[in-house]
Amino acid sequence: MEKKAMRGDFRSDNVAGIHPAIMAALATANQGTAQPYGQDDSARALNARFSDVFEAEVTVFPVATGTAANSFSLAACMRPYGGAYCHEGAHLRLSEGNSLAAWGHGAALVGLPGEVGRIDPAALRQALAEAPRGNTQKPQPDAVTVTQATERGTVYGLDALAAIGAVAREHGLVFHMDGARFANAQAHLGCSAADMTSRVGVDLLSFGATKNGAMSTDALVVFRRDLVEPIAFTLRRAGQTWSKMRFAAAQLQAYVEGELHLDLARRANARAAQLGHGLARLPGVALLAPVEANIVFATLPPALIDALQAQGFGFYRRGPGEIRLVCRFDQPEEEVAALLQAARAAG
Amino acid sequence: MEKKAMRGDFRSDNVAGIHPAIMAALATANQGTAQPYGQDDSARALNARFSDVFEAEVTVFPVATGTAANSFSLAACMRPYGGAYCHEGAHLRLSEGNSLAAWGHGAALVGLPGEVGRIDPAALRQALAEAPRGNTQKPQPDAVTVTQATERGTVYGLDALAAIGAVAREHGLVFHMDGARFANAQAHLGCSAADMTSRVGVDLLSFGATKNGAMSTDALVVFRRDLVEPIAFTLRRAGQTWSKMRFAAAQLQAYVEGELHLDLARRANARAAQLGHGLARLPGVALLAPVEANIVFATLPPALIDALQAQGFGFYRRGPGEIRLVCRFDQPEEEVAALLQAARAAG
Amino acid sequence: MEKKAMRGDFRSDNVAGIHPAIMAALATANQGTAQPYGQDDSARALNARFSDVFEAEVTVFPVATGTAANSFSLAACMRPYGGAYCHEGAHLRLSEGNSLAAWGHGAALVGLPGEVGRIDPAALRQALAEAPRGNTQKPQPDAVTVTQATERGTVYGLDALAAIGAVAREHGLVFHMDGARFANAQAHLGCSAADMTSRVGVDLLSFGATKNGAMSTDALVVFRRDLVEPIAFTLRRAGQTWSKMRFAAAQLQAYVEGELHLDLARRANARAAQLGHGLARLPGVALLAPVEANIVFATLPPALIDALQAQGFGFYRRGPGEIRLVCRFDQPEEEVAALLQAARAAG
Amino acid sequence: MEKKAMRGDFRSDNVAGIHPAIMAALATANQGTAQPYGQDDSARALNARFSDVFEAEVTVFPVATGTAANSFSLAACMRPYGGAYCHEGAHLRLSEGNSLAAWGHGAALVGLPGEVGRIDPAALRQALAEAPRGNTQKPQPDAVTVTQATERGTVYGLDALAAIGAVAREHGLVFHMDGARFANAQAHLGCSAADMTSRVGVDLLSFGATKNGAMSTDALVVFRRDLVEPIAFTLRRAGQTWSKMRFAAAQLQAYVEGELHLDLARRANARAAQLGHGLARLPGVALLAPVEANIVFATLPPALIDALQAQGFGFYRRGPGEIRLVCRFDQPEEEVAALLQAARAAG
Repeated sequence: MEKKAMRGDFRSDNVAGIHPAIMAALATANQGTAQPYGQDDSARALNARFSDVFEAEVTVFPVATGTAANSFSLAACMRPYGGAYCHEGAHLRLSEGNSLAAWGHGAALVGLPGEVGRIDPAALRQALAEAPRGNTQKPQPDAVTVTQATERGTVYGLDALAAIGAVAREHGLVFHMDGARFANAQAHLGCSAADMTSRVGVDLLSFGATKNGAMSTDALVVFRRDLVEPIAFTLRRAGQTWSKMRFAAAQLQAYVEGELHLDLARRANARAAQLGHGLARLPGVALLAPVEANIVFATLPPALIDALQAQGFGFYRRGPGEIRLVCRFDQPEEEVAALLQAARAAG
Repeated sequence: MEKKAMRGDFRSDNVAGIHPAIMAALATANQGTAQPYGQDDSARALNARFSDVFEAEVTVFPVATGTAANSFSLAACMRPYGGAYCHEGAHLRLSEGNSLAAWGHGAALVGLPGEVGRIDPAALRQALAEAPRGNTQKPQPDAVTVTQATERGTVYGLDALAAIGAVAREHGLVFHMDGARFANAQAHLGCSAADMTSRVGVDLLSFGATKNGAMSTDALVVFRRDLVEPIAFTLRRAGQTWSKMRFAAAQLQAYVEGELHLDLARRANARAAQLGHGLARLPGVALLAPVEANIVFATLPPALIDALQAQGFGFYRRGPGEIRLVCRFDQPEEEVAALLQAARAAG
Repeated sequence: MEKKAMRGDFRSDNVAGIHPAIMAALATANQGTAQPYGQDDSARALNARFSDVFEAEVTVFPVATGTAANSFSLAACMRPYGGAYCHEGAHLRLSEGNSLAAWGHGAALVGLPGEVGRIDPAALRQALAEAPRGNTQKPQPDAVTVTQATERGTVYGLDALAAIGAVAREHGLVFHMDGARFANAQAHLGCSAADMTSRVGVDLLSFGATKNGAMSTDALVVFRRDLVEPIAFTLRRAGQTWSKMRFAAAQLQAYVEGELHLDLARRANARAAQLGHGLARLPGVALLAPVEANIVFATLPPALIDALQAQGFGFYRRGPGEIRLVCRFDQPEEEVAALLQAARAAG
Repeated sequence: MEKKAMRGDFRSDNVAGIHPAIMAALATANQGTAQPYGQDDSARALNARFSDVFEAEVTVFPVATGTAANSFSLAACMRPYGGAYCHEGAHLRLSEGNSLAAWGHGAALVGLPGEVGRIDPAALRQALAEAPRGNTQKPQPDAVTVTQATERGTVYGLDALAAIGAVAREHGLVFHMDGARFANAQAHLGCSAADMTSRVGVDLLSFGATKNGAMSTDALVVFRRDLVEPIAFTLRRAGQTWSKMRFAAAQLQAYVEGELHLDLARRANARAAQLGHGLARLPGVALLAPVEANIVFATLPPALIDALQAQGFGFYRRGPGEIRLVCRFDQPEEEVAALLQAARAAG
């Protein structure tokens, strides 16, 4: 799309295009007329399909972005004076324009520290033990949100998720998962989608599809019946209820058909693993977190960073000497090889 | 898409599919990688293209729905204690879940009466003359919004728009146009897009594309530079900023390429004209508004309404004996003929 | 306070001063130290006292104004996409700066017509029968609010209140009463406070005190336990939780001590009755509503209106030939007599 | 007010009563009738008086609480996507129920570290240098707010305030001062009110009166004309516009008459100085911040804390071994002496 071709584009997984199967599904859906706003057969079929995938009766709301899925779902389910516990580095907290506070009418995000992007269940438990319940000066515990895979490219294990789910249940919190890279996490764990969600008590899932091959839609998956209504109303007034919903449904159907999403995530993860592996062996280079999904965080000698960018490799700097590299579903293996070779040559 | 085939589907123009040229554009855009969030070349190209179309330097924000375009643009530009004048039957006022009040923090819609869906410029001028400026108990005049074509299927003439634009300028109001059916209105008037917008002082345009052949995007077109920033921030936190923005841009580019949008609108309008014409000749049938775009409002004998629905024609009832029929860009002429024939037979 | 003395001040009941008994109560409360924010003994005593008055276990929140009581209580109890039915002339709807929409995140007020300021229970029932439940484009029924005495100076009878309470219960609505002039209504009906509230199913009462002798406080009286928490949090963050709450409590205690509020309301009502009576006998004068509380609405010959104002009588014009006169608890009988005499002389 | 008499009450300065001069002023104001909602002479006189005090043309809004002054003033002046820099321990950030985010529609508070409760101007400058301007994912710099005296009982020097004011001006930020204990700070510095505000560029001041002798009102003092309108509207719809505003004005007039506020603050400060002095000499006791206003933060041996509370001294624990003691305007010197004696005896 952009003229200056890169030798390797590791800026983000959302620089990618659309997977051919998803394009094909759009064409297939483009027949006849259909009830708008998700009141047609395609919406019912999508709910049924995802209920199979998550082994639980779920309601699916296709939405335009992950920010919409995160912010409006929590906003719809929290008290205005409530707080949602999250990792201090959560995307929702740092990179969504304070949207939960905006649409949640002052609902708060309470940041918790934690190694390599993960909330420590013990820290959550501790925070809840000290929560100022009934103190009108302070946010009241309403929700906990985890990012899976995390912003640091790591993945919560099933035990950690189960522990967080147990805390949530115990304290009456809504358990939300920001799964912008859900498939990458699932592929890493080798588990089922239900293992990561319904089995550990997830109530709301922002299910990413765009970063991993879809065109214009992510999905908000709701596991609790009583949360469906407030979310439906909130999304409608937020302009997230497409009239031609069938084309969003078609993308999501194709995305999970034959576990395409896992195939694509495995490819991206494999590229990142290669990249991490190769970089870690270079002198002066250190990985900042285990490479468990499709993202590599590393510190490199500043001269090496400059050299790689000068040679046409795209990625983001995250601080002095620190970079982030993201692999996407259609990342050519050659791009990884080229970057590693260039790094070795420059090192 | 839905199994029970209708003999004619006049429920809404958003039951339609995607025009082939727009599908083709998606495929074309699906090459290589691109900066996300509208920071790539496609966004710049879209701004340039629409600046040509509207003969003014505009900034285009593709958004998921017309509700998003309407609510968030006005919300971003109004004071929380401001009011926007609109027709009392405006979609924004009656059918968007009170969204402007929600995202505009209590911003108000002040309904004005008016024949066949149009605000009377004199009534607007009168309302402004009596506006309680400085009275902290009352909404303060901030904006005026017109729907073009109107909810009643009529179209504002250029003189009426110019008159409203003059009032807006005089009173320092933002002039917003809900153009969910902009192309249908333009086709009816036979004027340029600029005639209906930049030349009459429109500041913000919700430019509909979905109802007329696009898949998943409408556009918010901003004519005033100082309104760009608040809108950009508002849309981002509202989850309306697609990462893969290029595919929304591609739809909008294809939509206006070679004036496709006008072609399609002309077809829909022609079908509605036929329909209106045919119905008006039947005994006991009266049109409720001139058929100027692609919508027909009519009163029919209740038994005739029942008969038409029983025979598989889809449309909405709007009150006792009142129905609305909408024609879409790909409405087969046969469906119109069949409905008229059935009506004649049943009448 | 203001230099130009009036011959009679009928502008509003809130031009009045403070009743001596309430001033005395402030002095009495000014001893020793006390827990702030309503966590001291005075708050507990206030709840107990009002529970006696209303013959139900209530929680009392002293607040700075009636607008605060109205807006924040409804905002705290409604869904953002909910609607509250009210009379189309309700203060909350016309004169509070759209505050419910602001603090209620887009919650709507749905105006109902009704004679002389009163909602007709049948009209409410009808509106609810037609309510678009589940339609995400429309406000969902959440509450009904009545003004007692009404903005038109009339009073709902107990049967009407019971009928509205029954509808509310049936449809799961919160029943709110804007009682800015509660005492005037109670004095008119000659009933108990419980008859007008707990016995007819009122859930939330904005209990006016300022207009009838207090200094700086009205009260929000909450009849439903489950509504106490959201209201407490909402008021705290709205800056309505005084640190020195004991002085608000003292005002409210003195206000109801020995039924002072009813005494004062009876006096104001009697003045208004005299005034209405006297005016109605004049040629060219007509009362626009029965004078049941302390307010008179009348049409007068324009020349007469001018003459009265020229002679130093204060009141508000409400339209061509229409005026509103309000009597307060400490209105001297001479002011009423003087106005009537001047009117007769000028007539 | 509360039955169990304390030997010394150091819980907060808002446990105090009303100063007699302020009570007397209420009685004086209680004559005749007056225009409601601050449209009478008393409001004009208040503006004039405070304009003298602050040596600048100011507009004064009496409000019910400091939370109202802080939250609604910033909310009225910030963009919804804006951020206000504050000390990480600011009351506004930690103890006002996330109210700015609620009423400011997602406006953010960006916490800065700083010694003993004070923002370091260099840290502010640094934060602004790194501010992500134009990045729609992040709050945009809109305001800076300082607390004077700070939450830690310290006072910004005039140079520090001037430095922050300069940064604010340079970056176009609104400069807000939370002056819940303004008089205590002014008394400490021995400067004029103008030195601490208009001379250093303060735009908005939450001017505390309740903690230092008033009954039910603080004041929002607005130094910038263009901010008056949005604040007036915001306060009205927030139910902060008293009808009988003259009684709030009377309190504020009496509060500054003959510099009563400074007299009272000096007394409270002197008590705190004695207390800090005395405590600091005890073994195992350390002051956590210089005692510059009327608050003492100290670490004490846990057994000593227990002993003091057991003997009837009231104060708050702030962490293990840490307490806060606040002196009020009418704190008897004997209470300080008694506490110190008890501490020496128990030590």
